[in-house]
Amino acid sequence: MAIREKVFNTIVSCFKRHGAETIDTPVFELKETLTGKYGEDSKLIYDLKDQGGELLSLRYDLTVPFARYLAMNKITNIKRYHIAKVYRRDNPAMTRGRYREFYQCDFDIAGQYDAMIPDAECLKIVHEILSELDLGDFRIKVNDRRILDGMFAVCGVPDNMFRTICSTVDKLDKLPWEAVKNEMVNEKGLSEEAADQIGVYVGMQGGMDLAERLLQDQKMCQSTQACAGLTDIKLLFSYLQLFQVTDKVVFDLSLARGLDYYTGIIYEAILTQAGVAPECVTVGSVAGGGRYDGLVGMFDPKGRKVPCVGVSIGIERIFSIMEQKAEKIRTTEVQVMVAAAQKNLLEERLRLITELWNAGIKAELMYKKSPKLLSQLQHCEESGIPLVAILGEQELKNGVVKLRNVATRDEVDISRADLIAEIKKRTSA
Amino acid sequence: MAIREKVFNTIVSCFKRHGAETIDTPVFELKETLTGKYGEDSKLIYDLKDQGGELLSLRYDLTVPFARYLAMNKITNIKRYHIAKVYRRDNPAMTRGRYREFYQCDFDIAGQYDAMIPDAECLKIVHEILSELDLGDFRIKVNDRRILDGMFAVCGVPDNMFRTICSTVDKLDKLPWEAVKNEMVNEKGLSEEAADQIGVYVGMQGGMDLAERLLQDQKMCQSTQACAGLTDIKLLFSYLQLFQVTDKVVFDLSLARGLDYYTGIIYEAILTQAGVAPECVTVGSVAGGGRYDGLVGMFDPKGRKVPCVGVSIGIERIFSIMEQKAEKIRTTEVQVMVAAAQKNLLEERLRLITELWNAGIKAELMYKKSPKLLSQLQHCEESGIPLVAILGEQELKNGVVKLRNVATRDEVDISRADLIAEIKKRTSA
Repeated sequence: MAIREKVFNTIVSCFKRHGAETIDTPVFELKETLTGKYGEDSKLIYDLKDQGGELLSLRYDLTVPFARYLAMNKITNIKRYHIAKVYRRDNPAMTRGRYREFYQCDFDIAGQYDAMIPDAECLKIVHEILSELDLGDFRIKVNDRRILDGMFAVCGVPDNMFRTICSTVDKLDKLPWEAVKNEMVNEKGLSEEAADQIGVYVGMQGGMDLAERLLQDQKMCQSTQACAGLTDIKLLFSYLQLFQVTDKVVFDLSLARGLDYYTGIIYEAILTQAGVAPECVTVGSVAGGGRYDGLVGMFDPKGRKVPCVGVSIGIERIFSIMEQKAEKIRTTEVQVMVAAAQKNLLEERLRLITELWNAGIKAELMYKKSPKLLSQLQHCEESGIPLVAILGEQELKNGVVKLRNVATRDEVDISRADLIAEIKKRTSA
Repeated sequence: MAIREKVFNTIVSCFKRHGAETIDTPVFELKETLTGKYGEDSKLIYDLKDQGGELLSLRYDLTVPFARYLAMNKITNIKRYHIAKVYRRDNPAMTRGRYREFYQCDFDIAGQYDAMIPDAECLKIVHEILSELDLGDFRIKVNDRRILDGMFAVCGVPDNMFRTICSTVDKLDKLPWEAVKNEMVNEKGLSEEAADQIGVYVGMQGGMDLAERLLQDQKMCQSTQACAGLTDIKLLFSYLQLFQVTDKVVFDLSLARGLDYYTGIIYEAILTQAGVAPECVTVGSVAGGGRYDGLVGMFDPKGRKVPCVGVSIGIERIFSIMEQKAEKIRTTEVQVMVAAAQKNLLEERLRLITELWNAGIKAELMYKKSPKLLSQLQHCEESGIPLVAILGEQELKNGVVKLRNVATRDEVDISRADLIAEIKKRTSA
């Protein structure tokens, strides 16, 4: 939890720096709200028992509840973040950060705005968060659902096979091209010619230059959808340059995120380092998102659309990386232990700790009438408390407290009047 | 959520000041873990549908999961807080802060310690939190389960009626004595003599002096249980004096918290003000807790006990009071809006906002290529953004930004080099 708190703080300050507010939605939704939103994965939804009343399910992600919330409250403009748990009846895989109950951490911008400005801000946010968390080098892959669909069309994929071919392309981050092609041709029955043409495109990576080149591409040009996507990618990169984040962003035609609801730009961030510990190799993507302009309309009785773009930070994966990297970390923030050098000084300790608490200092004492000095000092070493304020008969007579630095074992007498300032000074760094 | 965040921060800093760490437990528990812990209220537990695998229920409070966690992980010493949602199939009552999904906010100290030291710290924490939240005057009532049981015994209540009579006594905060007596005698069949004797005791309130007087009481003395409780109350008050919180704490023999698992000291904090808004009158208790030395042992295969004392802050009630009191509050923390005075300055705005974000300033811009200056200023007024950094052709030529104070409408040209420092200075207060 201490590691988690640090990660949350970094992420939340970034969201607030970008002007987001936070909203909360219930852990359960009406079962029908979730129905038909997650394709095959719907079988992983937890349902509540029918105990009378509405049929409920536990939320599966934060995006569908957000869209439901916007439609229900007729909100057409909002920039919000939401960090909360979601639930999936999945097989847990601890090392990959996959659980049945896990945090999602979403930032979304809803509203009708000029093209690519909010989309670029989402990528800027991913860049800021991954840089600040210091997880090692990373890349943010960008593509567009319209470019994918256009590419499939010009390569000769029949309309009704777009989705299934798209989900095969999605496997390119785990499988070599040969295996992916094999699935397209032998399992899904695509012509070898179409597969080979797809193979040429999905091998392409670049920046704004690649978007410009593809806009000149004889074949790609035939699709107005693809052209619209490529024009937006160009515009996106011009904003990313101004945001100073193009060093990490790559336009990658093999990126094909699985979810049905994306309608435009899509992106995914991956760590490119070999990994701190061997298990990290399997960590995969640490952030992802895209534009989904149709989802809110599905919940509005009149089908009114609210364009949205968002990003989800893969916070459980980040936790598991941080936990593997972590040295011994403290679980409390106690600055000073109030200790006694002799027996029967409980009253004096209680009086002193009251002064410290009332001055806002994080302080602790042992819940014994007459604890041994050694056990008080040991507790400090074990739990990383940096200072001990020691009371003894001599100190009480002289109106002082012996302030001990746990690491160096240095001790100095400090007058009671100066103690609070001294503790604050020593623990402020 | 903005109000909630403020309340959470106050409470969490208090818990941390007292050296607590935080742990998290899952939202669902095995159904059998919750069975038989909540008496009649068990019917309010949400069960999950049997979709294969273990039978699960949503947590009903945070105390039972905490006890289960301690037993399962063989933890015998911990000071932890936990703020999380719990679930009850209850009839919602918004004005009283009663929902089906709501936050609980618990602080507990587990471990074998000298009497009343951790118990006193829990009361000190309640005192600190209620003072800091500035909800108006409050009282913390204190009693002891052993004093209640002893009192029932010496008043002639048969052993097997202790619980039911105790739950009638619990109604004294809502009903007059006559109604309570009527329930005891006419509904529950207690003798009128016993009821009258209870009536004398439950009218008593005081401090350490009352505990001392009752220790001399001919009747009360006959119960060794009651004597043990009274001796602890005396000790508790001596610690509370050292903690400087006796101004708000009252020993009240009518306090009888309903939960079965309490074994010693119990307490409850109430607001004594008539209430800010009329609805507040019904708010009732805002914190409560007590000692439960037997609960962890119920989850340990060998029945090993871990003594615990804790407090739960009634955070939903506090939210509803704060929400009723609240003036218009901001939902974001944006310090500055980056605005354009003329058309076609998007690039310049993006460049400037990047500088601000990279310097840690909370900044926002409108997602339009050429927004009107007026609509940018209006957005600031509506959402409480205090500063606007305005870019125009003249400003760009002169290497300055016009910094506008939204409230006073003052505008000053600031050089680009000084802008970040100036914004930080103006928004640091």
